[in-house]
Amino acid sequence: MTTVTRENLRLNGGRLWDSIMEMATIGPGIAGGNNRQTLTDADGEGRKLFLDWCHEAGLSVGVDRMGTMFARREGEDSNLLPVCAGSHLDTQPTGGKYDGVLGVLGALEIVRTLDDLGIRTRRPIEIINWTNEEGTRFAPPMLASGVFAGVHELDWAYGRKDADGTSFGDELKRIGWVGDEEVGARKMHAFFELHIEQGPILEAEQADVGVVTHGQGLSWTEVTVTGKESHTGSTPMPMRRNAGLGMARIVDLVDRIAWSHEPHAVGAAGHVDVYPNSRNVIPGRVVFTVDFRSPDLAAIEDMESRLRAGGREIAAELGLEIGFEKVGGFDPVSFDENCVAAVRWAAERLGYSHRDLISGAGHDACWINRVAPTAMVMCPCVDGLSHNEAEEISPEWAEAGANVLMHAVLDTAEVVS
Amino acid sequence: MTTVTRENLRLNGGRLWDSIMEMATIGPGIAGGNNRQTLTDADGEGRKLFLDWCHEAGLSVGVDRMGTMFARREGEDSNLLPVCAGSHLDTQPTGGKYDGVLGVLGALEIVRTLDDLGIRTRRPIEIINWTNEEGTRFAPPMLASGVFAGVHELDWAYGRKDADGTSFGDELKRIGWVGDEEVGARKMHAFFELHIEQGPILEAEQADVGVVTHGQGLSWTEVTVTGKESHTGSTPMPMRRNAGLGMARIVDLVDRIAWSHEPHAVGAAGHVDVYPNSRNVIPGRVVFTVDFRSPDLAAIEDMESRLRAGGREIAAELGLEIGFEKVGGFDPVSFDENCVAAVRWAAERLGYSHRDLISGAGHDACWINRVAPTAMVMCPCVDGLSHNEAEEISPEWAEAGANVLMHAVLDTAEVVS
Repeated sequence: MTTVTRENLRLNGGRLWDSIMEMATIGPGIAGGNNRQTLTDADGEGRKLFLDWCHEAGLSVGVDRMGTMFARREGEDSNLLPVCAGSHLDTQPTGGKYDGVLGVLGALEIVRTLDDLGIRTRRPIEIINWTNEEGTRFAPPMLASGVFAGVHELDWAYGRKDADGTSFGDELKRIGWVGDEEVGARKMHAFFELHIEQGPILEAEQADVGVVTHGQGLSWTEVTVTGKESHTGSTPMPMRRNAGLGMARIVDLVDRIAWSHEPHAVGAAGHVDVYPNSRNVIPGRVVFTVDFRSPDLAAIEDMESRLRAGGREIAAELGLEIGFEKVGGFDPVSFDENCVAAVRWAAERLGYSHRDLISGAGHDACWINRVAPTAMVMCPCVDGLSHNEAEEISPEWAEAGANVLMHAVLDTAEVVS
Repeated sequence: MTTVTRENLRLNGGRLWDSIMEMATIGPGIAGGNNRQTLTDADGEGRKLFLDWCHEAGLSVGVDRMGTMFARREGEDSNLLPVCAGSHLDTQPTGGKYDGVLGVLGALEIVRTLDDLGIRTRRPIEIINWTNEEGTRFAPPMLASGVFAGVHELDWAYGRKDADGTSFGDELKRIGWVGDEEVGARKMHAFFELHIEQGPILEAEQADVGVVTHGQGLSWTEVTVTGKESHTGSTPMPMRRNAGLGMARIVDLVDRIAWSHEPHAVGAAGHVDVYPNSRNVIPGRVVFTVDFRSPDLAAIEDMESRLRAGGREIAAELGLEIGFEKVGGFDPVSFDENCVAAVRWAAERLGYSHRDLISGAGHDACWINRVAPTAMVMCPCVDGLSHNEAEEISPEWAEAGANVLMHAVLDTAEVVS
């Protein structure tokens, strides 16, 4: 047996990559990515493959009533709370091969490597596959981790319906993954999640690893601007009540508001529906959703309130009615200082270039941070592209991120031999 | 027989209204209006009813190869060119009862009234029902009058296809209305079209009648703004290429450009498609159509060129690509001075309040003005609403408009007895 020191300990990047590629054969997409949406047959197959791998690695697997899988490698002291690592195996309908998968299989590769090298830890290590992170089939995203963290009720989660009216609870039963563990009963000493960045920063700055210090808070406001449908030709300018013009001015306002909270806040309207959407009819109504994010709750609240005040002013000038409905939101997350330090120190020790990041997207880690000390590791992705079958990362990026995850987990779980 | 003088000559408003209501029973809509789209079975039924009425009135009816119907009342001198009046009987899929119909049945009511009162004219009078004015089933609008005026080729018109891929030529044959007259062979001394305003001006100013002096020219430019689809959360503001923001600024620019050509120019974007149109994805592409109109060709050209220059500037500032395609347009129309004067004088003589109007919408009269002296009469419509089943006018408005049409036609055709 090779003697390893902490400094040169590396996991098997080739095996990690092969496992990612093998998982990607399940629920293939139509353009090189994956369609393995939660609680589909493909999700069931993916779970089975992961379960087999866990059993091969000698892990004991528990499943909770939300279908979340916990694969445990015992520690020297089984009475201590485990150090957990994981993410999700479900994908978007036109998703990539790495979003979520990297975090689950990276954690699996840790225990495979520890077994290879005969390394024991004081605390148990658990690998987690959270159910329904994506939320595209059953809204909202991060559903199982949300129930685990006490954000949602179990029955409410069971009642969530997909576009065909089928409920989450029925589908979980159908694919055979209703576990017997009470959701949230497992306690954790810490939780680490490795994930692709889903943004362009690391690649642009040629950083190997992102040390995630915060999760951005989010505010979604659905804005409905109502004017008057009328003929584009026969309605003089002073008699128009053009809801499309109101939308345009508010979309521009959203951009200005976000810039005013540089450098971390962002804002945009990704969804815009114009009615009746005809070339020769002045829009009578436009419904659009404003997405504001910031790691600072006060900034989010300021952006929301300026959207409402500024939107009302624009509407009044144009003779429009305006309504606002908050349709989504969560508070900013400050990840645990010790866990973040463990990630940063691991990157340093391994000689990877790194920078602190704020996660712009939501992740299971954002909910779990409420019930256990948590941090995230990110690796670059090509062109910032995600939620797209063309999502791509390099094997080197995957390996670097997983090595950082391993060292952070081991520092926290404490290596015995 | 009652002796009538020119000043007190009035048509039978009750009969006109009854005929409009009877026509509206054919191709009923779902909300009190009509769905009698061109070349449908309902259109065939509507044509048959109109034909029967023409025969009852002793008119001889000819049909041209585009299906346009010409119902002729002989004049004292049959060698003189006829004075024509008409509009269209086809409707939008969710259309009103008056758009087009008023102009055809108002013209029919003229000859019924002349028959009632035994009034003869020197020139023949012809009532016209133009095929496919609306253009919603087979684009473009004003198709038959366009062929009549030499704007379109007959074969091109026959080849126009509806959403099911069925051609105009095949459908015209199927409903049995391919006539034998060469399109455009009929010559006119003058053409008058009575139509509802489809705008809010007459009602707002409590004017009984609009004297249409010009038709606005139109320019449709389809703008495609291309940025980069990316995550609304994880893409920092400086790294965004937000096509939605580009669209918003250009829509606002369109408004400013139109106002700069007060009082007659107008501009708006009625149609906006955002891709992928998801709450958490920055729009990678937006396609929208800018509609500019003015009675002044130079103003239209200026607006088009400022849209392109300003759009390019906005796109460059935001790191976007931009493309422009002219997808529709026609030049402004100046109606015939003598015909316009006949309409204005008729309104004066009859004691109706009136004002000059510029038609913002396209009408068959706009094409026919190219081949015959032409003018239009407009009556108010409630709230400016048209192309909507809720389109409404009062019997008094219909009667006033038709009386003005009658006097203009009679002055031009010359009353003999």
